[in-house]
Amino acid sequence: MTSHPHGNAERARPVADHAAAVAELLQSVRLAGRTETLPLSRALGRGLAHDVAAPLSLPPFANSQMDGYAVRSVDIPDGGADLRVMPPVPAGSSPQPLAAGTAAPIMTGAMIPAGADAVVPIEKAVPDRFLEPGQDGRVTLPATARGTFVRAAGTDIAAGERALAAGTCLGPAQLGLLAAFGMAEVEVHRAVAVLLVTTGDEVVAPGRPLPEGKIYDSNGTLLEAAMQQAGLVVRRAGVSSDNPAELLALLRDQGQDVDLIVTTGGVSKGAYEVVRQAMADQPVDFLHVAMQPGGPQGIGTFDGVPFLGFPGNPVSCLVSFEMFLRPALSAMLGAPAPRLPLRARLAQPLGSPGHKHQVRRGSLQPDGTVKLEGGEGSHLMHALARSNVLVHVPAGVTELAAGDEVEVWML
Amino acid sequence: MTSHPHGNAERARPVADHAAAVAELLQSVRLAGRTETLPLSRALGRGLAHDVAAPLSLPPFANSQMDGYAVRSVDIPDGGADLRVMPPVPAGSSPQPLAAGTAAPIMTGAMIPAGADAVVPIEKAVPDRFLEPGQDGRVTLPATARGTFVRAAGTDIAAGERALAAGTCLGPAQLGLLAAFGMAEVEVHRAVAVLLVTTGDEVVAPGRPLPEGKIYDSNGTLLEAAMQQAGLVVRRAGVSSDNPAELLALLRDQGQDVDLIVTTGGVSKGAYEVVRQAMADQPVDFLHVAMQPGGPQGIGTFDGVPFLGFPGNPVSCLVSFEMFLRPALSAMLGAPAPRLPLRARLAQPLGSPGHKHQVRRGSLQPDGTVKLEGGEGSHLMHALARSNVLVHVPAGVTELAAGDEVEVWML
Repeated sequence: MTSHPHGNAERARPVADHAAAVAELLQSVRLAGRTETLPLSRALGRGLAHDVAAPLSLPPFANSQMDGYAVRSVDIPDGGADLRVMPPVPAGSSPQPLAAGTAAPIMTGAMIPAGADAVVPIEKAVPDRFLEPGQDGRVTLPATARGTFVRAAGTDIAAGERALAAGTCLGPAQLGLLAAFGMAEVEVHRAVAVLLVTTGDEVVAPGRPLPEGKIYDSNGTLLEAAMQQAGLVVRRAGVSSDNPAELLALLRDQGQDVDLIVTTGGVSKGAYEVVRQAMADQPVDFLHVAMQPGGPQGIGTFDGVPFLGFPGNPVSCLVSFEMFLRPALSAMLGAPAPRLPLRARLAQPLGSPGHKHQVRRGSLQPDGTVKLEGGEGSHLMHALARSNVLVHVPAGVTELAAGDEVEVWML
Repeated sequence: MTSHPHGNAERARPVADHAAAVAELLQSVRLAGRTETLPLSRALGRGLAHDVAAPLSLPPFANSQMDGYAVRSVDIPDGGADLRVMPPVPAGSSPQPLAAGTAAPIMTGAMIPAGADAVVPIEKAVPDRFLEPGQDGRVTLPATARGTFVRAAGTDIAAGERALAAGTCLGPAQLGLLAAFGMAEVEVHRAVAVLLVTTGDEVVAPGRPLPEGKIYDSNGTLLEAAMQQAGLVVRRAGVSSDNPAELLALLRDQGQDVDLIVTTGGVSKGAYEVVRQAMADQPVDFLHVAMQPGGPQGIGTFDGVPFLGFPGNPVSCLVSFEMFLRPALSAMLGAPAPRLPLRARLAQPLGSPGHKHQVRRGSLQPDGTVKLEGGEGSHLMHALARSNVLVHVPAGVTELAAGDEVEVWML
C-alpha cells in the first residue's frame, strides 16, 4: 500500500487558479486549422470561428410593415384624401415608382415603391378591403405621417457592421441571422474529442450482474451526457480496474487521436489510487482544489495529450466538469454557451466549510427560491437528478440563512 | 385578390386557449406504440415513457465516505483506543465481518464490514498513513460516533421508490441515475417528425443570388434549429412560392409520413395568403391570437396530418414555436424540458397593447436586470440574435417602468 500527502485547507488550490490551469491546458484545442465549414443545419451549438460582418443590410430595402396602401404622405391633408389605386405590390416584387396622387396596394414585407414614404393599413381605408384584380378604382385614406409602417433599410443592422463576434455560440437566432444574410454555411470550431474512462475495481458497467460490494458505473453515463450536451465528441473506454497496467494499456490503445483524456476516480489519497499510479511517469499533478465536492483533481498530459483526472463520485464528476472543463471550452471555443449566473434566494439555511467553495444542488421553485436537494454528499445521484441548478457558496462563507441570495447556475 | 375578415381585439383568441388547442391537436404524437428503447448514450434529451422505480437501493450497501479505518464505535472510549489493524477493505470487495477490538483500513466507497458502524478518517489516525501491505500493526483512533462517515444503504433512494416520473426529460443527471440502477437502456418517446416549409414569393434560399425586392429565408433555419434543439426530427421542404398549387403539391409529396406540418407565412389578411388558399378544402382554422408578435395563426389538419401555420416574420415564428409548439411537446412527451419561468427587473420602461400578450426579446445583464433588445418589430433578426430571454408582458398590462419585475424565459 502506498500513501500520498494530501491537500489541506492551507495548501488547497483556489477554484479560480485551477480553472485557469485547465484553460491553459486546453489551449491546444483552438490552434489554427482546428475549424471546419458546416451547412447551417449542422452548426447548431458550435462556436463561430471568426467575426461575421453583415454582408447586406437588414432589412435589405424599405418594406411595408402592414397590408395596406403605400402612399406619398404629402398627398394626404389632415382631412384625408381620395387617391387613385395603382396595381398592387406583392411581397417579392420590384415595384414601379409611385406617382403623385396615387396609392398602391402593398403587402407586408413588400418593397416600398420609390416616391412612397408611408403605409396606411387596409383597416383604415375606405373601402377597407382590396379591390378585385383588374378593377380600377379609388380609395379614401386618412392623413399619415411620413415613415408610418415603413421598415427602413438597415434598421436592424447596416451592411458592414459586425453582426456576430468570433466565439459566439450558434443557437437558433444566430443561425437564423446568418441565413438572413444569405449565408448557407459557416466556419466553426471543430468539436473537441474526448476519451472518457471510469476507473475502480468496485465499478461495474450497467446491464451486467452486480456482485456484492460493487456499484454500477454512473460517472461514465453522467459525464458522457454532459459532454454530449456541451458539444464534445465522446469516446467511452468503459471501466478500468484498479490495476495501473490495465489503465495504461487502455489509455495507450484508445487515447492516441483524442484532444483530451478524462478519467474518473483514483486521484485521491487512498491506498489504491489507480490514476495516480498510472500517471507516475507522466507530467501530471495531483492536488486538492478548495472546492466541495470535487476537491481531489489530476491535471497534466498523458503521452502529450491533455489529461484531467476527476474524482470518483458522480456529483464530484459533474461539479468538476461544470466548474473547470465546461467554462474553459466556452471561453476558448464559444461552445457550449456559458452558464448564465443567476441570483436566487435560499429556501432554507445552509452551512459550508469556510475554506472551500461549496457547490450544492438545488431546484428553483415557482416562487423564485431555490430548494437544496440532498445534502453535501457527493454520491447522492437521485438528489442530483431532482436538481436543476448548482448553488454556489463561495470560500469564506460558513453560513447562509433562508432568504439569503446565492448565485445559481441552471443545468 | 381576396380579402379575409381578420381578428380584432374583441375576437382574438387568448394565448392560453390557443396553447390548449395546439396541445389538443398534438395528442396523436403520444399514442401507444410511439415509444422506443434506446441505449443511455442515445437517450439524451428524450422524454421518459414510463415511471422508473428504483430496482436497487442507492447506495446499494453501507459504504465508507472517507479513506480511513472502519471500526465498531463501542470499541473506542472517549480517550481513544489502540486497535489491531486487519487486512484492508478496498472498494469493490466484500469484506469479512469486523471482530471486536479491531480496525480495518477502508477506502472511499468500500463496503462497511459487518459489525463496523463508523469510519475514522486516516488523517485522525496515529499513524496517519496506512501500513505497508503485509505489515502487522496497531493504530490509535479517537472516539467516533456511530454512523460517522458511513453512507447508509438506501439513503439516496430506497429500492422500490419511484425514482423518475414518466415524462421526465432525460438530462445527464437522470441518465446517470439510470446507469446507477444498472440500466443500460431506457424506453423513451419517439422523436416527433416535422415537415417545415417556408412560403412566400419574396423569399430566397440562402446561398443563391438575391433579386431586388426579395429577402433570404431566415425562418427555415431559425425554426429548424429551434426544433433540433427541442429534439424534433426536421425535414426541410425548402421555400414554396405564393402559388397554392405549388404548396399543395409540395405538402402532398413530402408530408405523408411526418407527425406534424409547420409552414411559415401566408396566414394573415393580405391579398396573397398562400397557406390560407392552399388549406381552403382542409379543416384548418385561420385566426388571430391575442399575442404580439405572432398574432395570425393557422391550426388544423392537412390530409389528416396535424398542421400549424406560423406567421411570416422570423421573430413571430420563434415566438409561435416557444409559446405554443414547444410547451405542448414538453407537456406531452417530457421533451424538450419546459422553459423555467424566471423573474427579472426591467432595465428600461416598455409599453404594450393592453389587449395582447406581448413577447419582447431581451438580454439578462450581470446585475440581474433585463435589457430589451430591439423594438416590437417582428422582423428584427439581429436584435433577436443578441437576446437570451423572452420577456412576457401579459394581456391587461399597458406600461411597465424600469425596475418592474417581469417573467422571462431563458432561450
